[in-house]
Amino acid sequence: MNLRNCKTIKDRRGLVEKELGVDLNHTGSYSLDEEIASTRNCENMIGVTQIPLGIAGPLRLTSFAQGKLSHTYDYYLPLATTEGALVASVNRGCKAITESGGADVVSQHIGTTRGSIYVAKDLHEILLFEKWITDHFEELQIVSASVSSHLTLLKADTEHIGTSIFVRWYFDTKDAMGMNMVTIAATALAKYIEGKMNVSCIAVAGNFDVDKKPSWLNSIKGRGRKVWAEVHIPEKVICMTLKTTAFSMYKVWLNKYMLGSAISGSMAFNAHFANILAALFIATGQDVAHISECSLGITTVKPEEKDLYVSVYLPDVMVGTVGGGTGLATQKEAFEILGVAGGNDGKNAERFAEIIGGAVLAGEISLLASLSEGTLARAHRKLGRGGR
Amino acid sequence: MNLRNCKTIKDRRGLVEKELGVDLNHTGSYSLDEEIASTRNCENMIGVTQIPLGIAGPLRLTSFAQGKLSHTYDYYLPLATTEGALVASVNRGCKAITESGGADVVSQHIGTTRGSIYVAKDLHEILLFEKWITDHFEELQIVSASVSSHLTLLKADTEHIGTSIFVRWYFDTKDAMGMNMVTIAATALAKYIEGKMNVSCIAVAGNFDVDKKPSWLNSIKGRGRKVWAEVHIPEKVICMTLKTTAFSMYKVWLNKYMLGSAISGSMAFNAHFANILAALFIATGQDVAHISECSLGITTVKPEEKDLYVSVYLPDVMVGTVGGGTGLATQKEAFEILGVAGGNDGKNAERFAEIIGGAVLAGEISLLASLSEGTLARAHRKLGRGGR
Amino acid sequence: MNLRNCKTIKDRRGLVEKELGVDLNHTGSYSLDEEIASTRNCENMIGVTQIPLGIAGPLRLTSFAQGKLSHTYDYYLPLATTEGALVASVNRGCKAITESGGADVVSQHIGTTRGSIYVAKDLHEILLFEKWITDHFEELQIVSASVSSHLTLLKADTEHIGTSIFVRWYFDTKDAMGMNMVTIAATALAKYIEGKMNVSCIAVAGNFDVDKKPSWLNSIKGRGRKVWAEVHIPEKVICMTLKTTAFSMYKVWLNKYMLGSAISGSMAFNAHFANILAALFIATGQDVAHISECSLGITTVKPEEKDLYVSVYLPDVMVGTVGGGTGLATQKEAFEILGVAGGNDGKNAERFAEIIGGAVLAGEISLLASLSEGTLARAHRKLGRGGR
Amino acid sequence: MNLRNCKTIKDRRGLVEKELGVDLNHTGSYSLDEEIASTRNCENMIGVTQIPLGIAGPLRLTSFAQGKLSHTYDYYLPLATTEGALVASVNRGCKAITESGGADVVSQHIGTTRGSIYVAKDLHEILLFEKWITDHFEELQIVSASVSSHLTLLKADTEHIGTSIFVRWYFDTKDAMGMNMVTIAATALAKYIEGKMNVSCIAVAGNFDVDKKPSWLNSIKGRGRKVWAEVHIPEKVICMTLKTTAFSMYKVWLNKYMLGSAISGSMAFNAHFANILAALFIATGQDVAHISECSLGITTVKPEEKDLYVSVYLPDVMVGTVGGGTGLATQKEAFEILGVAGGNDGKNAERFAEIIGGAVLAGEISLLASLSEGTLARAHRKLGRGGR
Repeated sequence: MNLRNCKTIKDRRGLVEKELGVDLNHTGSYSLDEEIASTRNCENMIGVTQIPLGIAGPLRLTSFAQGKLSHTYDYYLPLATTEGALVASVNRGCKAITESGGADVVSQHIGTTRGSIYVAKDLHEILLFEKWITDHFEELQIVSASVSSHLTLLKADTEHIGTSIFVRWYFDTKDAMGMNMVTIAATALAKYIEGKMNVSCIAVAGNFDVDKKPSWLNSIKGRGRKVWAEVHIPEKVICMTLKTTAFSMYKVWLNKYMLGSAISGSMAFNAHFANILAALFIATGQDVAHISECSLGITTVKPEEKDLYVSVYLPDVMVGTVGGGTGLATQKEAFEILGVAGGNDGKNAERFAEIIGGAVLAGEISLLASLSEGTLARAHRKLGRGGR
Repeated sequence: MNLRNCKTIKDRRGLVEKELGVDLNHTGSYSLDEEIASTRNCENMIGVTQIPLGIAGPLRLTSFAQGKLSHTYDYYLPLATTEGALVASVNRGCKAITESGGADVVSQHIGTTRGSIYVAKDLHEILLFEKWITDHFEELQIVSASVSSHLTLLKADTEHIGTSIFVRWYFDTKDAMGMNMVTIAATALAKYIEGKMNVSCIAVAGNFDVDKKPSWLNSIKGRGRKVWAEVHIPEKVICMTLKTTAFSMYKVWLNKYMLGSAISGSMAFNAHFANILAALFIATGQDVAHISECSLGITTVKPEEKDLYVSVYLPDVMVGTVGGGTGLATQKEAFEILGVAGGNDGKNAERFAEIIGGAVLAGEISLLASLSEGTLARAHRKLGRGGR
Repeated sequence: MNLRNCKTIKDRRGLVEKELGVDLNHTGSYSLDEEIASTRNCENMIGVTQIPLGIAGPLRLTSFAQGKLSHTYDYYLPLATTEGALVASVNRGCKAITESGGADVVSQHIGTTRGSIYVAKDLHEILLFEKWITDHFEELQIVSASVSSHLTLLKADTEHIGTSIFVRWYFDTKDAMGMNMVTIAATALAKYIEGKMNVSCIAVAGNFDVDKKPSWLNSIKGRGRKVWAEVHIPEKVICMTLKTTAFSMYKVWLNKYMLGSAISGSMAFNAHFANILAALFIATGQDVAHISECSLGITTVKPEEKDLYVSVYLPDVMVGTVGGGTGLATQKEAFEILGVAGGNDGKNAERFAEIIGGAVLAGEISLLASLSEGTLARAHRKLGRGGR
Repeated sequence: MNLRNCKTIKDRRGLVEKELGVDLNHTGSYSLDEEIASTRNCENMIGVTQIPLGIAGPLRLTSFAQGKLSHTYDYYLPLATTEGALVASVNRGCKAITESGGADVVSQHIGTTRGSIYVAKDLHEILLFEKWITDHFEELQIVSASVSSHLTLLKADTEHIGTSIFVRWYFDTKDAMGMNMVTIAATALAKYIEGKMNVSCIAVAGNFDVDKKPSWLNSIKGRGRKVWAEVHIPEKVICMTLKTTAFSMYKVWLNKYMLGSAISGSMAFNAHFANILAALFIATGQDVAHISECSLGITTVKPEEKDLYVSVYLPDVMVGTVGGGTGLATQKEAFEILGVAGGNDGKNAERFAEIIGGAVLAGEISLLASLSEGTLARAHRKLGRGGR
C-alpha cells in the first residue's frame, strides 16, 4: 500500500479502504480544518476519531497566590471520554465543591524542563563544566532566547554519575506547554556549549526531564506547574450530595490511598487523577501522553468534626492553551467553554492548570464517596467497631 | 445553567452555547450513534471532540508462544494524535522493523485485577481469613462466574499490614479489558465473604489493583498482559532507514534509558511508550487513563557487531477489543484497520496487545535513532574517543 | 607495609602500629578465639572493635501460626550500640508492650534468595528455557541438595528483558541466614543448566536477589522471612509509661509515617526499624550490611477509643542463629540471653526473626511516643482544633 | 529481673547471668572506658560485643575540588566484620586501584538535615508561612546558632500537602554527623516559629529528613555529603590483579547493576556498597543504622579499549569524626589508622567521607571482578557470541 503517493486525506483514506477492504465512512466524517490538521498535527492523516464530549459543572474555584488578588469563577468542564459514569462522577464532585462554597486553588510555576546528557573526560572536567554553566548562565539565557521570544531559560540543575553529566534546563514558555520549543532550545544550547567546553552532548533528551514517564524527580522537584486544590465540605453536603459520612470517607482514604499505595509501591497516592486528566487533555488538545507523569500526586482527607477537608496536590502539570492540538476546531471550542482560550502572557495556562487542580479534586471526592457509601455501609453494620 | 432539563444532546449543546456565549458548531458535527454514545459512554453529552487520525505501517509482526503455531502479519496502525511528527516517527520505526524481516512478539496473560481491602480484628483472624480464601477458592470462582459468563476468577494474592488485608483478584475477561465487570465481581465477592467470615470490606478498589497509577506491584507482578517484542536490525537498515549507527544508538540508550532513568528515580526505563499508547488507545476506544500504568516498561538495546538488537518489555497492558469505547463508530473502524475487531474468545485482545508491543517497539527505535543521528554525530567528531 | 608476611594477629597489629605510628592497645584487647575469627570471619585481622552492649526487656511475645501451638515468652534483648538513648528507648517500648499483655508475632518463611542472570539468543529460546526450568525442577532440587544437606531449593521465579533472563532461586537454609551456601548452590545450578540448555550464566548474583539493596521486589515478594508484630496498648499504659495519648501518637504517625514518607519517595513507611536492627544484628553476629534491605517495612497505628493498636510489618528479615558471626564468643553469649542459640531445624531462626519483629515494634512505639509527647503537647494548646 | 537497682556494669551483667542462667564472661572482657560508654553511648550496659577488625590497603586516593589544592594519600582501612572474604575482597580492590595510580575522589557538602512537620489551617496560611520562613531566615539562623557553636543553619526546603507543611532544615555540623544537635536545633526552631506564626509543629522529625530509611528525596537532593570516586584501571591490572577482562566486567555491570536493578525496583544501582559501609561504620563508631540510607548510590563502568573506567556515586554519606561512638577506645584507634581522628573544622569529616567513597569503589571493583572471572569465563566458551 503506497501511502506516499496520496495527495489528500481522502485519497489516503480511499487507498486504505480499498487495500484493507474496510469501510472508513465515519473516520471520514469531520469538520476540522484538514489542511492545518494534516500538516501540523498528524502525518499520513486519513480522517478523525470522534470522542464523545460531556460537560460537568458548575465548579466554583477561587484562585489566589502571594501578593495577587484572588478571583472566583464558576467553570464548566469539557470532558472527552468513552468511559461511562466518568462525567456523572466528576459532575457530582463539582456539585459537592460548589455547594461547599467552592475550592481554593494555588499553583506554582516550575517550568518546562528538558534534561540533556553531556559526557566529559573525568571528574576534574565535570567540575569545570558545572562551574562554567553557573558562570555563563546569562550567555545561555541569550542563546535560548534566540530560539523563540516566547521562551526564557530560568534555571539549570546538574547531576553527574561516571562521566555522564545530566543538565536539567527549566524554561518559561508562557501559555504553551512548550516541549517542542524547549527541545529546540536545548539543541541550540548543546551546540553552543560544545563549542565552548570540552564536552559532548550525547542526547538532548536524556530522561532527566523527565518527559512522559513517572519519576520521583518530577514528583519531588515538580515539572510544568505544581497545583494544589482544597475544599472544606460541610456535613450537610456530605450527607445530601455525597450520600455518605466524613468518617467513612476518611477510612477509605486511609486504607486505600495511604496503606494500599504504600504496600503496592505506588508512585501516586491518589485514586484516579488519570481519569480526569485524560478527559480534559483529550477535550482541549493537550499532549495526552503526558498523563503518564501528570497523574502523579497525593490526595489528603481530614475530618473536621463531621465536616471533611479534602485536598489534592499535583506536582507535575504540563499543559498549555496555545500550540499542539489546542487550536483544532473542537479543542478550541472546549477552551471557549472553560474561558481560557489562547495566549495571555502565561496567565491562561496558569488558570487552566488551576482548573485542572479543581477538576481533579472533584473527581477524587466523588470516587471516594462512591467507595465509602457502598461497601463501607455494610461494613459498619457488621464489624461493630468499624474497622480502621 | 440547568443541564438536567435537556433531553437531547442538541438541546444541551444549545443551552451551553447560550449560557456561556460560545459557539460549538464543530463539537456538534459528528456521525457516531448519539443514542449509544450518550447512554453508554458519556453523560451530559454535548457533542464530540475530533482527533486527527493518521496511519503508520506496514508493521510486520510474528506472534508466537509455547506450543502454539506462530503467525506473521503486516499491520497498519491507526494513530489518533494532535502531536505533529508522532505518526511519521512511528512510521519510520515500522519501516525499519519490516525491512529487518519483522519483529517477534510474545504475550503472557496475567489477568485484569481488582484489589479489595478487608479489615479483621487482629493477626489471628487475618491468618484464618487468608486460609479460608485458599480453602474456599472454588466457591469464590462460582460467585464470580455468576456475575458474567465472560469472566473467570483465576487467582487471589493476599497481603496484610496492621488489621488491613489486601486481596488482589485476578480475572480472565476474554476480549474485554473488563474493569467494570471485575468491579462488580469484586463487590459480589465482598458480599459473599462478609457473610461467611468475620471481616469487613472497607473498599472494593483499594489501590492494590493497581488501577491507573504507576506502581511497582504492577511492574513486578504484571497486570492485564505482559508483552515482549524484539527485532534484529541489520546494519544496512540502520544506515539507510535510521540514518545512524548501531553504536550511536547503543550509547544513547545506555546513557538515557539506563543512567538517566536511574538518576531520576524513574519507574519506566524507556523513552516514550506513552506516546504510542496514547495514539493507539484514543484511536481504538481504550480507557485512555490506563496510560498512567501501561506506559511502564523497559527498552533494551544490544549491538551485534554492526547490527542492533532492540527489545521492549511492557509488564502492564490493559486493553480490550470489546466494551468501553471500542464499539463507537470511528473506533470500530480503527479495529477494522488492525484486523482484530470484536470478540474472539480472548484471541483478539491478545493479538491487539501484541500489536501494541510491536508498535511501541517501532516508536522506541525511531526516537532512539533521532536522538543518536542528531547530536551524537557531532559528539563523535568532537570528543575523539566517543564518550561512553 | 607488607601485611602478608605477618603470621599472627599480634604481628600484624604490631606492624600497623609501627608503620603508621599509632597505638592499638585497645584493639589488641579481646577474648574471642582468634584462630577461628581470623580464619572464618575476618582476613588481615589485627584485633577487635569493642561495641558497648546494653540490655532491654523483658519483652513479652506470643508467637503463633496456622495449626501451630502458640507460645509466650519474656525476652531480654542484647543491643550493641554506640548511640546514646537507643537502649533506653527500646526498653521503654518493651515495658509498654509487656504491660499491655505482650505483643503477638507471626512469621512467614520466604526463603533465602539468589537471583542469577542467564542470557539466551532470543525470545524463542527464552521461552524454551523457562519451560525447561519448570519441567526439570526436581532435577534442580537434587543439584542444589548436593551442595549441602542444610539446603533445599523451594521455588524459582523467572523474568526476562531483552535477551537477559533473571532467575530467582528460593532456598530453605534452616537456621542459617545462608547467603554463602545459596551462592554455591546457584553456581552449581548454573553449571548444570549450562550443560543442558543453550544459555549462559552471566552473573550468579544479578541484583534480582535482591541482596543488600533496598528494592520493591523484596518488599513485595519478601525475602528471608516476613514478620508481623502487633499490640493493643491500653490507655493507662499510654498515659503512665508512654506519657502521651493515643490520639497524639496517631497524629504523628499519620503525618510522619504516611504523608512524610509519601512526599519523600521513601521505600520504608516506618520511623527507625534500622536502629533496632543495627543493635541486634551487631550483638548477634548477623551480616550487618543486610540492614540496607531489612529496614524496609510499614508501621501502622489505629486508635481504639483511647487505647492504641500498633503493628509493624517487616517483609525482608534475613537472619540466622548459626553461621556467619553467630558463633563468636560475645555473639554466642547474646544468643544465650535470647534463648535461641545454635541450630534447631530452622525453629531457632524463626523464633529469632519473630523476636526481631517484637523488638522493632518496641522501638517504633517508644519513638512515636517521644515525638508526640514533645512537640505535639504544645501543638494542642496552640492550634485549637488540634492539627490533623 | 530488676536491672534498675544495678549500679555498675558488672552488677548488671551478674544479675543477667544469674537470672537467665547464662555465662557472659566474654561480654565482660573489654578495655574501653566503661564510665563514658555507659553514660554516653549505651544505657543498661552489661559489657561489649567484640567484632573482629581487619585491615585493607594501601588505598591511594587523590582528593580535589574546585579551587582547592588536591592532595594524595595512601590509606589503610580498618574494617570490622564477621563476614569472611570481605576484607580480602576490599583489599584486592585497593590493590587494583593503587596499582592503577589511585582513584580520584570529590565530595560536595549538603548538610545534615532534619525534616519537621508543621500544620496550618489552609492553603492561604501555608503560603504566608512559607513566605515568612524565607523572609526571616536570618532570624532562624540565629535561633539555630544558639543551640551550638558547631552548628550553622544553611537552608530550608519546604513542601506541603493538605494542611501539612514539611520543612527540611539543612545544617553544617562541622566534623560531627550531628543528628543530635540538629534535632535540638529543629526543636528550638519549632518553639520559636510557633511563637511567631499560626502553625503547630506536629513532629520535629517527620520522615522528610529522611533519616535511616532509603528514599528518593535523599537520592535526588543528597544528604550529609555527596561523594564521587573514579579510577581508570589499565588492562594489565585487570588481567594480573583482577584476573578478568574489561569486557567481562562491563557485561556483568550492564546486566546486574543496570538491568537487574531496573527489573527489581531497586533504589540502589550498585552491588554491595552496604558491605563496605557496615565494616567501616562499625570500626569507626558511626551510627550503623545509617547504612539503610548511605548504601544508596550508583556504580558505573565504561570500557576504554581494554582498560576500564569505574566510578561510584554516593548521594547520602552521613558520617563524622567526632561525637557518637567515634571517641570510644577501639574506634578512636581506627581513626588513627585512617589519619582523620577528631575535629578539624569539618575537614576531617570531609576527608573521611572521601575515603569512604574510595573504599566503596574498591569493594565494587573486586566483587565485579569476582563475578566476571567466575561464571562468565565459562559463558564465553559456551555461547559463542558472548551474551550481551
